[in-house]
Amino acid sequence: MVVLLGASGYIGEAFAAELQRRSIPFLPLARAQLNYADFKLLLNFLRERRPDLVINAAGHTGRPNVDACEDQKAETLQGNTLLPMTVAHACLAAGTPWAHVSSGCIYSGAKVRRPDKEEWTVERDLNTPPLRELFAKAPERFQGFEEIDPPNFTFRRPPCSFYSGTKALAEEALTGLGNGYVWRLRIPFDEIDGARNYLSKLLRYARVYDNINSLSHRSDYARACLDLWQQRAPFGFYNVTNPGAVSTRDVIQLMEQIRPPGRPFEFWASDEEFYRLGAKTPRSNCILNVDKLLAAGVQMRPVAEALRAALAEWRPEKAKKTA
Amino acid sequence: MVVLLGASGYIGEAFAAELQRRSIPFLPLARAQLNYADFKLLLNFLRERRPDLVINAAGHTGRPNVDACEDQKAETLQGNTLLPMTVAHACLAAGTPWAHVSSGCIYSGAKVRRPDKEEWTVERDLNTPPLRELFAKAPERFQGFEEIDPPNFTFRRPPCSFYSGTKALAEEALTGLGNGYVWRLRIPFDEIDGARNYLSKLLRYARVYDNINSLSHRSDYARACLDLWQQRAPFGFYNVTNPGAVSTRDVIQLMEQIRPPGRPFEFWASDEEFYRLGAKTPRSNCILNVDKLLAAGVQMRPVAEALRAALAEWRPEKAKKTA
Repeated sequence: MVVLLGASGYIGEAFAAELQRRSIPFLPLARAQLNYADFKLLLNFLRERRPDLVINAAGHTGRPNVDACEDQKAETLQGNTLLPMTVAHACLAAGTPWAHVSSGCIYSGAKVRRPDKEEWTVERDLNTPPLRELFAKAPERFQGFEEIDPPNFTFRRPPCSFYSGTKALAEEALTGLGNGYVWRLRIPFDEIDGARNYLSKLLRYARVYDNINSLSHRSDYARACLDLWQQRAPFGFYNVTNPGAVSTRDVIQLMEQIRPPGRPFEFWASDEEFYRLGAKTPRSNCILNVDKLLAAGVQMRPVAEALRAALAEWRPEKAKKTA
Repeated sequence: MVVLLGASGYIGEAFAAELQRRSIPFLPLARAQLNYADFKLLLNFLRERRPDLVINAAGHTGRPNVDACEDQKAETLQGNTLLPMTVAHACLAAGTPWAHVSSGCIYSGAKVRRPDKEEWTVERDLNTPPLRELFAKAPERFQGFEEIDPPNFTFRRPPCSFYSGTKALAEEALTGLGNGYVWRLRIPFDEIDGARNYLSKLLRYARVYDNINSLSHRSDYARACLDLWQQRAPFGFYNVTNPGAVSTRDVIQLMEQIRPPGRPFEFWASDEEFYRLGAKTPRSNCILNVDKLLAAGVQMRPVAEALRAALAEWRPEKAKKTA
C-alpha cells in the first residue's frame, strides 16, 4: 500500500490518477484524517500500517505565485522543509521507503558552450540577447544541470526566492536519510486548463516573461516517478522533466500554431522591467539534465512533443481551483 | 548518562560545568565525533547508548551579532530549527527524553498597565519615553510574557529578525514531541568577560542601545534547567531568566557603582537612529514571566542580585573566543 500526502494538490492529483490507473492500492492521507506534520502521530501510523511507500506531494507554493512565499516564511518553511524532514525521519525510524516531490527551481541557468569556446560554463542568467539568440540557433550548446551539480539558486547561493531556499534546504536535510527518492519537478503543465498549469498561466498573464526552461508534463512526471519505484531504481535524487528545454517564445509559437489564443502576447521588455514591475522575488529559470532518469530505463517524451500533445488535447475550463 | 550537544558553545559550557559540579555523568558530543545533525546516525546512537537525557545547547547565533543571520539563512535554519527537530524526532523514536535551549527572543515588549488604565495590554515596543519613564518609576506595572502567551516576534508576527523567526519555528515544531523540555534563555551574562557575555558587550559597544529586558545569568540558567530535570518537573516549555527586568541604563548604573569602566557611556539617541545606523534587523527586547519556573520549586536570584554579583566578581580577560 502507498500512502500519498498532498493528494488533493496539483501534483498529488497526478499521482492519485496514475496509482489508480496502475491498480496500486493507495491511501490519500488528508491532514484532517491524520496530522502527518506531527512526527509522533505519523510515526505511530507508519509503525502500525507499514505502507510500502510514502509519497510526499504536499508543499507550500504561494498564491497567486511564488512572491507570496516571501511574506509567508513560516508556512513556506513548514510545508517545504519541515514537513519533508518529518516524513523522512518518521519513515526512516519505521523502516518505510519514502519519496519527496522536490523541484528544479533550486537551479538558475544552464551549462553553456559559447560559440567561440570549447568548454562548458555555468551561465546563471539565460535571458540575455546573446544567449537567447544562441539557444534559438544552437540549442545543443545548452546542457542541463545534473543531479550531482550543486544547486545555485539557494540560501547558500543567493539571490534566490524564499520558496527556492526552502526547497533546497529540504534536499540537504533529506540527503542520506535511508531509502528515499527525491523527484525534482519543473514547471508543471498538461492539457487540463487550471490555475497551476503553466500553459494556462501563459494564456492569462497580461505580459509574458521570456526565459529558457525545462518543463514537466504533470502525468508524465507521475508516471516516471512511479516507474522508478516500481522498477526498483536505486534510491536517490532524480531530475524528472521532459527531455530538452524551451524558451517561453517557443511555447507561445506552438500555442499560436496549434491553439491560437486569439490575442497577441505581450512580453516584458527585459528582466529589469519584469523585476521592477512584475515580480518581487527572483525567479528560477533553468535547464535540467535527465540522463540519470533515462539511464534508469524510464521513458519520457521530449518536451516539444509533450507540449504539442497538451495543446492538441487542450480542455479549457473555468479556472478550476486546485489546492 | 546525559548527552550534551553544543558543549563548547557559550551555554553548553555552563551545562558542562554544572553537570560536572553535580557529578552527573555526561558525554559532550562533538560533531566531529558524531554528526548529530544526521538523523540516522543520531537515532542509531541513541538506540545503542540509551542516555537519560539529550540536552541540545547547539545553535546558530550569528557573529558578531544577530544581523549576520540575515545573510546566513541556511545555517541559521539548520542550527536553530532543523537540528532541534532532528534531535527531538530521534529522541522520540528512541524513547529518550530531550531538552532544547530556546530563547525568549521570540517576544517583543511586555504586558503593561498604564497609569490611567486598569487592564494589562501587550506593548510591543518598550523603548518609548513614556514607557521608559513608567518603568523607572513603577516597574510593577510591567509583567513578563508567560509560556502560554503566543510569541509576537516571529515569521507569523513580523517584523522579526531571521534568527528569532527560526527559534520560534523550532518551538512550534517541538510542540507535542514526547518527553521534552524547552528552556527559554534571555540575554546571557555572568562574571567571566567574553564575546557572548552581555556585560562585556555593553563595555565594548561604541554606543549602547537602551531598552528593557529580562536577562539570564548563565550558570543560574544551567542550574535551573538541570533542577527542572532532576526534580522531575513536568515536561514542557519554561521561561528560565532571573526574575524581574532591567533597562540598559539600570545595568550601566550598576556598572558605574560597582565596577566603573573609566569611560562615559554613549547611548543611541533613539530607536530610529539605532536601526538606521547601528543595526540591520529588528532586535527583540522583552520581559519574561518566570512564575512557572518558580512554582516548579526552582530557585532563581532576582536579576539585580545576579547582576551585582557578576560585577562584583568580574574577571576581565582578553576577549576569549567562545564558540
